[in-house]
Amino acid sequence: MDDLLLQVRQGRPRAIARLITLVENSETAAETAVTALYSATGQAHIIGITGPPGSGKSTLVNELAKEFRRQDRRVAIIAVDPSSPFTGGALLGDRVRMRDLAGDTGIFIRSMASRGSLGGLAEATAGAVKILDAAGFPVILVETVGAGQAEVDIANAAHTTLVIEAPGMGDDIQTFKAGILEIADILVVNKADRPGADRTIQALELMLHMGEGSATRHHGRLLSTPDNGPTADGAWQIPVQATTATQGKGIPELVVDIQRHYAYLQASGVWLEREKERSRRELERLLQARLLRQLQVTVAPDRREALVTAVAAREMDPYTAVTELFAHLSPSKQAGA
Amino acid sequence: MDDLLLQVRQGRPRAIARLITLVENSETAAETAVTALYSATGQAHIIGITGPPGSGKSTLVNELAKEFRRQDRRVAIIAVDPSSPFTGGALLGDRVRMRDLAGDTGIFIRSMASRGSLGGLAEATAGAVKILDAAGFPVILVETVGAGQAEVDIANAAHTTLVIEAPGMGDDIQTFKAGILEIADILVVNKADRPGADRTIQALELMLHMGEGSATRHHGRLLSTPDNGPTADGAWQIPVQATTATQGKGIPELVVDIQRHYAYLQASGVWLEREKERSRRELERLLQARLLRQLQVTVAPDRREALVTAVAAREMDPYTAVTELFAHLSPSKQAGA
Repeated sequence: MDDLLLQVRQGRPRAIARLITLVENSETAAETAVTALYSATGQAHIIGITGPPGSGKSTLVNELAKEFRRQDRRVAIIAVDPSSPFTGGALLGDRVRMRDLAGDTGIFIRSMASRGSLGGLAEATAGAVKILDAAGFPVILVETVGAGQAEVDIANAAHTTLVIEAPGMGDDIQTFKAGILEIADILVVNKADRPGADRTIQALELMLHMGEGSATRHHGRLLSTPDNGPTADGAWQIPVQATTATQGKGIPELVVDIQRHYAYLQASGVWLEREKERSRRELERLLQARLLRQLQVTVAPDRREALVTAVAAREMDPYTAVTELFAHLSPSKQAGA
Repeated sequence: MDDLLLQVRQGRPRAIARLITLVENSETAAETAVTALYSATGQAHIIGITGPPGSGKSTLVNELAKEFRRQDRRVAIIAVDPSSPFTGGALLGDRVRMRDLAGDTGIFIRSMASRGSLGGLAEATAGAVKILDAAGFPVILVETVGAGQAEVDIANAAHTTLVIEAPGMGDDIQTFKAGILEIADILVVNKADRPGADRTIQALELMLHMGEGSATRHHGRLLSTPDNGPTADGAWQIPVQATTATQGKGIPELVVDIQRHYAYLQASGVWLEREKERSRRELERLLQARLLRQLQVTVAPDRREALVTAVAAREMDPYTAVTELFAHLSPSKQAGA
């Protein structure tokens, strides 16, 4: 493991790929790797990209990667596909990508899918981001299809979140996804050469206008202190950028927006706020994992199952069951219900 | 409180509305109400309805309610809108509904929105469902816009989940939302009088065909025992039902599908499986809430904040921070870090 970690720190692609797989499949490996690499993280700009199927996300991400490469910055891409049963870099999209970006050792590409990971996709993605950060990639693009929890997770993990739309998907404000303003730092209208692009841009700008003052991000609740009020987040004006990724149009401008957002995050102190939020959520997640591991040690499987069954059958109310479970949680207790 | 709970058990609308508000706003009230009412729950058929904006969900839900009323069954509707800042029954949609369903004391309608609830929308919805179940409503319709976590939550809370689509939103398989087969028990193509409805139905049926064998629901992981394998869930063939809700077309057939699903759930034992899954998730949620409350008692706010800040600044790795927090969790410990 020590040798592997050293090679990751040197940015060796095969070592990085191997460590990501290890961390995906073993909580022990995740703990070892994160503990060892953590102090080397925190340098990368993590950029989340989300949008509905058909918005041209993958092409846009490829073009963004190429533009960053023109500026001689190394780029890592994590493509998260919650709907796919495959994992570990075998996706069709990857192969198309590989052809397009092949031979550039400054680009690392990884797919994450819903199966084969112990701790869930969000945890696996967070692990991969840390490894790539410690491996020295200054830019990490995390792409996911705009659906469900994956989208919220990506916004939580990223410093800058791009939401991609395309014309002709119905431009009533109500057809845009609920919550879009809560996660977007930059809105992108891709396929801007299509008819109706202007209407889409106008509809988004109208929505932004209506949402003014409420477009700040949610803050974690559980570990936060009561005086943890809103940040200066609202000072960022969400831009709407038109792109035609297949022709590379609008991509340099989009990278300027991204870098402007980076400068804003740093200057305003929001960068540190977001890192604190991310840390809070991570601590909560790890605490919960440890709590449940502890339960599995201290409460016999039969008893756990009996409590669940009693609650399902309405023979016991859930609060009474939780009181019993919680009584087993003393860290000093060991095995046996 | 005792008097209020009694009135709820008698099905009095004003008492039900008041208790839902109390439970939304106070964890203590939630604990008291759930502990008192829990043994009276478990009777209602909870039906989740989700779909994208513009699919005609609200009209469909109204028509479903009317059809159940024709069979002389009392119906409760919970309309969950994660994008709305309003709560407590003041939504425009409600007023439109009230006009349509007005004067029928066999129908209870409640809106839930993202603000004003302490424990999050999923918890508030779960609380309202329990209250309405204990109040004797045999049918509870829970409607939400098809976006993000709300959709997953609704499927987790429901016995039967309807996913609504409409024609003309692009009928490539890839434009349907990822994960649709994981949550749908019944697919509905509403606005079936529109051109292209046949294509939408065909595309959905093709997707169902492709998804065969993988359309079973996810199971909770955290409290489950290792031998908790897949259920007989796969035996249910997801139907695709065409409706034109504005004309009431297809609604009786849809109710037949729903009742067929209910009969399947009961006969197959999947009903109890789903109740156990729901109970597992509820116990996990309550355990986590209790864990975090305990942390707030045993770890001083300054120390909590210092740990979060140290992790964000990469001065401490998250596993080390969690080890310190966890050491404070002994149930016997009281106040003071």
